[in-house]
Amino acid sequence: MRLISPLLPFRDAVAQFRTGGLSPRHYLEQAIDHVAQTEPTLNVFAHLDLVNARKLADNSTKRYRQGQALSRIDGMPVGIKDIIETSGMPTQMGSDIYANWRPLADATCVQALRLGGAISLGKTRCTEFAIGRATTTLNPHDTERTPGGSSSGAAAGVASGMFCAGLGTQTQGSIVRPASYCGVIGYKPTWGALPLNGVHPVSTSHDHLGVIADSVDSAWQVAWWIAQKSPIPLRRGLNGAPNSELLSRPVRRLAVLRTAGYTELDEASLAAFDGQLEAWRAIGIEIVEPPEDDALSKFCTEAEMIAEASMRMVAHEMQWPYRSYVENNSDLVSEKIHNLVLQGARIDRLQYVQLMQLRTTLREQAQALCEYYDAFILPAASGIAPTGYENTGSRTLVVYSSFLGLPACSLPLLQVDGMPLGVQLMGSSNGDYRLLGHSQWLMDTNLNCVRD
Amino acid sequence: MRLISPLLPFRDAVAQFRTGGLSPRHYLEQAIDHVAQTEPTLNVFAHLDLVNARKLADNSTKRYRQGQALSRIDGMPVGIKDIIETSGMPTQMGSDIYANWRPLADATCVQALRLGGAISLGKTRCTEFAIGRATTTLNPHDTERTPGGSSSGAAAGVASGMFCAGLGTQTQGSIVRPASYCGVIGYKPTWGALPLNGVHPVSTSHDHLGVIADSVDSAWQVAWWIAQKSPIPLRRGLNGAPNSELLSRPVRRLAVLRTAGYTELDEASLAAFDGQLEAWRAIGIEIVEPPEDDALSKFCTEAEMIAEASMRMVAHEMQWPYRSYVENNSDLVSEKIHNLVLQGARIDRLQYVQLMQLRTTLREQAQALCEYYDAFILPAASGIAPTGYENTGSRTLVVYSSFLGLPACSLPLLQVDGMPLGVQLMGSSNGDYRLLGHSQWLMDTNLNCVRD
Repeated sequence: MRLISPLLPFRDAVAQFRTGGLSPRHYLEQAIDHVAQTEPTLNVFAHLDLVNARKLADNSTKRYRQGQALSRIDGMPVGIKDIIETSGMPTQMGSDIYANWRPLADATCVQALRLGGAISLGKTRCTEFAIGRATTTLNPHDTERTPGGSSSGAAAGVASGMFCAGLGTQTQGSIVRPASYCGVIGYKPTWGALPLNGVHPVSTSHDHLGVIADSVDSAWQVAWWIAQKSPIPLRRGLNGAPNSELLSRPVRRLAVLRTAGYTELDEASLAAFDGQLEAWRAIGIEIVEPPEDDALSKFCTEAEMIAEASMRMVAHEMQWPYRSYVENNSDLVSEKIHNLVLQGARIDRLQYVQLMQLRTTLREQAQALCEYYDAFILPAASGIAPTGYENTGSRTLVVYSSFLGLPACSLPLLQVDGMPLGVQLMGSSNGDYRLLGHSQWLMDTNLNCVRD
Repeated sequence: MRLISPLLPFRDAVAQFRTGGLSPRHYLEQAIDHVAQTEPTLNVFAHLDLVNARKLADNSTKRYRQGQALSRIDGMPVGIKDIIETSGMPTQMGSDIYANWRPLADATCVQALRLGGAISLGKTRCTEFAIGRATTTLNPHDTERTPGGSSSGAAAGVASGMFCAGLGTQTQGSIVRPASYCGVIGYKPTWGALPLNGVHPVSTSHDHLGVIADSVDSAWQVAWWIAQKSPIPLRRGLNGAPNSELLSRPVRRLAVLRTAGYTELDEASLAAFDGQLEAWRAIGIEIVEPPEDDALSKFCTEAEMIAEASMRMVAHEMQWPYRSYVENNSDLVSEKIHNLVLQGARIDRLQYVQLMQLRTTLREQAQALCEYYDAFILPAASGIAPTGYENTGSRTLVVYSSFLGLPACSLPLLQVDGMPLGVQLMGSSNGDYRLLGHSQWLMDTNLNCVRD
């Protein structure tokens, strides 16, 4: 397997920050080297502020020298998706409506990162409001292919070693899918477990803040710290953990979430996924397919309603604030968003409430299954990144966890035609700590296996 | 009793809109007459747009002529608190940081009012971010006194007949208290029952959107419509109602929420409140005092922790976004907000979680009591409006419902020294329809009584 990122993993870097073998400033310079080499091609940043980043890295260097690091993410180079508000940098939402817009306050998550000593290099590109028109970022593994949307810049930036972690958001598939396409870790927490204050909304019921990172540990550290430093009520997804230490947790039994959506996979991708399941069986993990468990089978069948239901809920919720955008700035809004707003307006409150009820019903089924399985397993996208830039990829296999609000993680375990493909783990509501522990263990296990 | 507003009640106006005896445009002109007469003194509006209001009223007039009213609030003159975002008018938050700021989208509630044909006259003044420095609005009943905060303009505007309903917000007491001071109806729904999208935050756990109005029916119609037209998940507080018709509901048994906070009341205010209880007893309503019910007594005692706990939670949650404001625009932020941010920073996540647990415990006690009582009853403020403008009044008796997230309504039933004083009803979580039905009945009952 190709390494996730050409940058030294943050966990190793921080060990050296502590001993003095490497300083946050020198580490940042390595990241900046990657920016210099690849940014002209990849177009990861909507705004880059290296002057400030170097200043922050020097402050971090001083803290480590004095043994006074602020957190486990002190000195970590990060990128901030450009629908997340930053008072020190423009926030343009991937939309001309917000061209050069400067918010008056930092989003809660940005404030938290700052309090922890993380070093923001800048704002990463995303699709229009994370739902509309594609952006100009390219896939580092093949510049003829999309990096996936909407957290395009975050995924491409981690994969090319520009930063260790990018704050991303997922409404339907915008963390897990680009992570899969770019061969990095993507972690979307339980719905409500991370704060969305100061993040531009798409859909209240579906929006999630999450992390794209160079390792499961980095993703966990960033998310855990944000939850700790969020001065607002959150679901306990991340606050249930005893501390920031991520416990690697052996996997015993996985439920394959094998749905009709798998028909989107080409033969090679499906073979790679099934090969991974075989490899895990070979080391003693019980892999259960739907025909072997009636409850799982029922859930996989009913999950097929999710893609359509999710699209309707999102379109309806987009009445706010997109209806205003369409009315006030019609020509600056893409056709895709125009159509979503129109579609959403045709859904009435009763239909909407029925969609929410479907969500509740399916979520209860998933929770019941999580009593017996360590996690659900499925591909993290419908194959490798498609060629071209207009289409940021299918959301079929990534929307389940978004609709249900369950934590999900994309692990860069597969390779197809030289391109990465992720394996997706989906856990129980608020079971984030457990899910990431299992993810960590699976990553470690695969690194220890001899693989061709 | 003095009438609530010099403007014809909206319910009567709408009956005439239907028969053609009065048009929304003519009705608006009556409201505008009151603006012309009193605005120079009262200073209700941060921004007034009569040109647009007249245009909207003409459109509404046409709809009624064609028998095609959009909703039960079509043609209703309304005011919008200036922490609520409007794309057509500046939104200044009562703060110089937002001087002349124009949002790019309407708040969900503003969009809903527009879809229902309500006629916005403009943005009403509020205290700085609804928590800081007092504003310049005066009390229509006595210009030497505060109208209360923070929804100052909304309450003064309804009381002086400028509009039938004002959108307000309550974090600790900002709807119920100004309604009490100005002698109008104030309705704060169940927490989460109305959308806060596009409303500037103070405290996620405490913020509520609500309505100040000329009648219980107007308050209900506005709130119900907003809930219906909100394309996002809401708690069912208002969506539980079978339709928009408010059913007047006889009151059988009330629990007096008599706490140590009553010591703030002067003798005349306390006598007026107790006199009301006696009058209700006389018509057969059972009025239960804490000594008569152990569970009520326990709740009244423990409720004394609320004022302090609430202040700590709010201060902590204000870390976002006020910390950015203090850091980026220190000199434009009042000392009060500076102090709250400092206070909130000293509270750690564990203390905060304990405060949330206290909230859960007390809420469960309140819910259990609501099985036996139609509502809790208490004064809607610690007496009549204080003289002067700096002090917008005590929050002691109004913070219970905010902290617990329970619906509350201020009814303008009392008069002390020629000034209004409200009686406050507090109901069960999501019991909004029932609470407003009881409120309606109590208002009707009192109008039918012979009172001096």
